[in-house]
Amino acid sequence: MKIAFIVYERMNALDFIGVYDPLSRLQSMGFLPDLEWEVCGLRREIPGEKGMLFEVTRVAESLAAYDVIVVPGGPGSRSLLHNEKFITWLRTATLIPLKVSVGSGSLLLGQAGFLIGRRATSHPHAFLELEPFCARVDDARIVDEGEVVTARGVTAAIDLGLHLVRRLAGDEARSRIARQMDYPYADLTDYQ
Amino acid sequence: MKIAFIVYERMNALDFIGVYDPLSRLQSMGFLPDLEWEVCGLRREIPGEKGMLFEVTRVAESLAAYDVIVVPGGPGSRSLLHNEKFITWLRTATLIPLKVSVGSGSLLLGQAGFLIGRRATSHPHAFLELEPFCARVDDARIVDEGEVVTARGVTAAIDLGLHLVRRLAGDEARSRIARQMDYPYADLTDYQ
Repeated sequence: MKIAFIVYERMNALDFIGVYDPLSRLQSMGFLPDLEWEVCGLRREIPGEKGMLFEVTRVAESLAAYDVIVVPGGPGSRSLLHNEKFITWLRTATLIPLKVSVGSGSLLLGQAGFLIGRRATSHPHAFLELEPFCARVDDARIVDEGEVVTARGVTAAIDLGLHLVRRLAGDEARSRIARQMDYPYADLTDYQ
Repeated sequence: MKIAFIVYERMNALDFIGVYDPLSRLQSMGFLPDLEWEVCGLRREIPGEKGMLFEVTRVAESLAAYDVIVVPGGPGSRSLLHNEKFITWLRTATLIPLKVSVGSGSLLLGQAGFLIGRRATSHPHAFLELEPFCARVDDARIVDEGEVVTARGVTAAIDLGLHLVRRLAGDEARSRIARQMDYPYADLTDYQ
């Protein structure tokens, strides 16, 4: 099981870390000891918020070999919509089994063509922009269409991460990881 | 208004980012346009989770000039409890008006002497370790003792951040930032 966390400039750090934290616990807490992940981007280093730097462990390499890609949202997502190099790179994930996004990251999945015929969600500020890319915008915290899972904004990253934990390792793993993350709201998430 | 985000090795990234996201929006969304922050630690660079690096913007400088310090928890907190250099450095914040922690970060506040005579909380795994440092361990998501505010584990970072937003900028700021963070659980937090 191999996950690619996509990073880019002016993404939202919590969109990334909110999914990263529960997923990485699948490995550290022993549920999926062989779980591996890479931080994937188009440059060696991506400056994050002040004082934060993302060190890209796989630079501009094809995403075809991963089982999951995770695409965060954030202000930078809009500038990438018409960045041909980025979208072409994202499309190397076309055949992988699970593509997920947080917030406006779903616009990038949309531009790559991954939402055609599918329901999807995003940060509420991006609902209108999302419409042309998908069959229907659903106002739910998590929209699971099997091969593609989209989440609403920022803090929904945590709910998405816990949802993926359940898909990858089952209910018991999800409940133990939610407890370790001290997250009392795990069962309040609405799914569609 | 100046905030110091404390970073150290093997801290939990979500403990940091969960508070950082709502607090930094006080500035980016215009509620406190003069808000400033620094990332403070004892070395120029702190390696975070895989692919993440914290670039310390103020290395080993006194914390006395800040209005708020934010101390995350994580596995690394225990090794710092008996690190005299770190604890001595943390004590330079003794006289500042607001000292806050997430999870086992409260053990570090405790070791610095900031919890004497005060109630406090922590990650539930650290409740027993916390007892000797404070007047009483309270099992609440946020314990606000005025000059010191402690939060439970990991995801409580978000609730702490929103609580501080309210203290620093009022209810309207808190509710608008929670909406921007797409956080539906803001009013479920228990305070003591």
